[in-house]
Amino acid sequence: MSDLKIQRFDSFELESGRVLAGVQVAYQTWGTLNAERTNAVVVFHSMTGDSNAASWWNSIIGPGRAICTNTYFVVCANLLGSCYGTTGPTTVNPSTGDAYRGDFPICTVRDQVQIQRLLISRLGVKNVECVIGGSLGGFMALEWAILDPSLKKVIAVTTSGRHSAWCIGWTEAQRQAIYSDPFWNEGNYSPASPPSAGLASARMIAMLSYRNPASFSARFGREKVLSDRGALASTDQKNGVNDVQEVFSVESYLRYQGQKLADRFDANSYVRLTQTSNSHDLSRGRGTYLEALRSIKQQVLVVGVDTDILFSLEEQRELANGIPGAELAIIESPHGHDAFLLEGDTLNGIIKKWLSGTPKAVLQPVFQQVSCA
Amino acid sequence: MSDLKIQRFDSFELESGRVLAGVQVAYQTWGTLNAERTNAVVVFHSMTGDSNAASWWNSIIGPGRAICTNTYFVVCANLLGSCYGTTGPTTVNPSTGDAYRGDFPICTVRDQVQIQRLLISRLGVKNVECVIGGSLGGFMALEWAILDPSLKKVIAVTTSGRHSAWCIGWTEAQRQAIYSDPFWNEGNYSPASPPSAGLASARMIAMLSYRNPASFSARFGREKVLSDRGALASTDQKNGVNDVQEVFSVESYLRYQGQKLADRFDANSYVRLTQTSNSHDLSRGRGTYLEALRSIKQQVLVVGVDTDILFSLEEQRELANGIPGAELAIIESPHGHDAFLLEGDTLNGIIKKWLSGTPKAVLQPVFQQVSCA
Repeated sequence: MSDLKIQRFDSFELESGRVLAGVQVAYQTWGTLNAERTNAVVVFHSMTGDSNAASWWNSIIGPGRAICTNTYFVVCANLLGSCYGTTGPTTVNPSTGDAYRGDFPICTVRDQVQIQRLLISRLGVKNVECVIGGSLGGFMALEWAILDPSLKKVIAVTTSGRHSAWCIGWTEAQRQAIYSDPFWNEGNYSPASPPSAGLASARMIAMLSYRNPASFSARFGREKVLSDRGALASTDQKNGVNDVQEVFSVESYLRYQGQKLADRFDANSYVRLTQTSNSHDLSRGRGTYLEALRSIKQQVLVVGVDTDILFSLEEQRELANGIPGAELAIIESPHGHDAFLLEGDTLNGIIKKWLSGTPKAVLQPVFQQVSCA
Repeated sequence: MSDLKIQRFDSFELESGRVLAGVQVAYQTWGTLNAERTNAVVVFHSMTGDSNAASWWNSIIGPGRAICTNTYFVVCANLLGSCYGTTGPTTVNPSTGDAYRGDFPICTVRDQVQIQRLLISRLGVKNVECVIGGSLGGFMALEWAILDPSLKKVIAVTTSGRHSAWCIGWTEAQRQAIYSDPFWNEGNYSPASPPSAGLASARMIAMLSYRNPASFSARFGREKVLSDRGALASTDQKNGVNDVQEVFSVESYLRYQGQKLADRFDANSYVRLTQTSNSHDLSRGRGTYLEALRSIKQQVLVVGVDTDILFSLEEQRELANGIPGAELAIIESPHGHDAFLLEGDTLNGIIKKWLSGTPKAVLQPVFQQVSCA
């Protein structure tokens, strides 16, 4: 495992004009930068992820994997606003001496890319060979393509070129669940009493969007469990038809997932990173959406998941059709959006073939060549 | 408009064994019971609906409509546990003199059917000609078929024969949003300070499940509005990238829908009716699911919606294939689950043809004959 490292920047100006003083970026690296300083691969984590990409994407990052750490210098940084080492709501604001908490600003996807470009430069990288991310991570990958013409390759996994009304709606339901928590206090809660129930509730909503009806039915059916694994409110156990101690397995599972996130993540970070998602629009200030897609000059691999209810296949096709150098691969999986994490071996195979430039005909049917728009 | 009427029952024993004393059922009727007392059509409302079916289903109930009020004696009752006239959490418990609130029991789908069968009997109906409902309302329609062999016809609109893990998961996320509200207090909140934010949040989650990505994108895109129509917490307006007063239209829409429901509905009723949904399983105590479906002897019309993400087309096909006398119609609509309310004219046409026994060949392609399993 790679150590967590820190780079500090005296100040960083956001798109909004607000300046963050004394920013630090936490990151991890694997492999070695080559003499030409051109073998860097930048990996982006998704909403509640961290910089330890070789752990959560261990199927695709490592020796002999698609993102081979013997070949590439792999970098993954924690996002601004997150709570895993990079400056965010739990960080002390040097100008007040207190944690930012609810006062931490929204950082856009472009802000995230710009600070990571500063990081990469600080690490001595000359040109980035490839950027890769799934879900929110894919937003940064696509945005980087426009902001850095020297970038060569982009891998965007089950993501989009602009956060849709549908996805914004999902994040809004999650934020409102957090705002309903008595401990929320507009983000200015005490670290000792965070809005855990609201954050857990938000995570439960998110878990639905990450999965799909078939996977839930196959895994849980209408099974019940005797005791609840989570510690959330469960007044519905009263007056149960069969047994006051029984809950549906799927309820227990969601509560457990909610509680698990609430135990490891900060509610302000959650709110701010959903707002980072909402800022995502490749075409903001750049003409029409299609014009923005056409301005991407890199080779781009778009990977979709057939059962993803959050980022639809239509969005993947729109991306792949709009970007001149794009190709589309579709993963068939019962896991919905989370297939980008759960189908690591399949994803590894797709990326390996694409990076090696294997003739496209060999890659059918998973790998589909898409004509330029 | 039909008047709201009340029938009272001295007591009613639930499946759980708990006895409700002094139960009242609020209902409305349209048309006249014929001399043979055999022309009754029972309509069921969905989660947050009421007994005024001729209003919310005005495209299909009325003179000349599929459920013609010149032909049929139409009855729609408010569900047990709801807050529109039938006994529920806001009703005074005669044994305590206080409102039931959090102590109101879970009523199963079978409980709902049994009390409505008592109601129908009280109204002088001998045999019911047809039962019809969409979503949760469809649960009662299908359950009635098994409990009442004298029933002739069943119309089940975008529903299922057992509440799936997926749907249970959605309701659990909604309950947890309510439980996170500081005013929830295990359901024993004061009528003057209900858990409105939690209920609004639950409704926002539900609204996502009732719609679909394409309809949201077409309607809202990434448009922003200057002011927020809802009154929910909106701390995310701070530090906005472009304008502190702007929110996405889809956020404003969801907040408005959430607040609107919180203004008209009771949080305990919401929790209990989601639990009524979760109780739904035609096969509980009746062998396998397929055996339960095969035991349904009535003529059944199953109507699905191609874009419904809550009750999938697979579930509609499973129903139609499993029930010997079932036929399946599929509505093509961009509106997702809510098409059962929003595509009233299409639904009216389908039901009218089915009730009139029009030869099936005429009804293609919307109307698909499904072979018996």
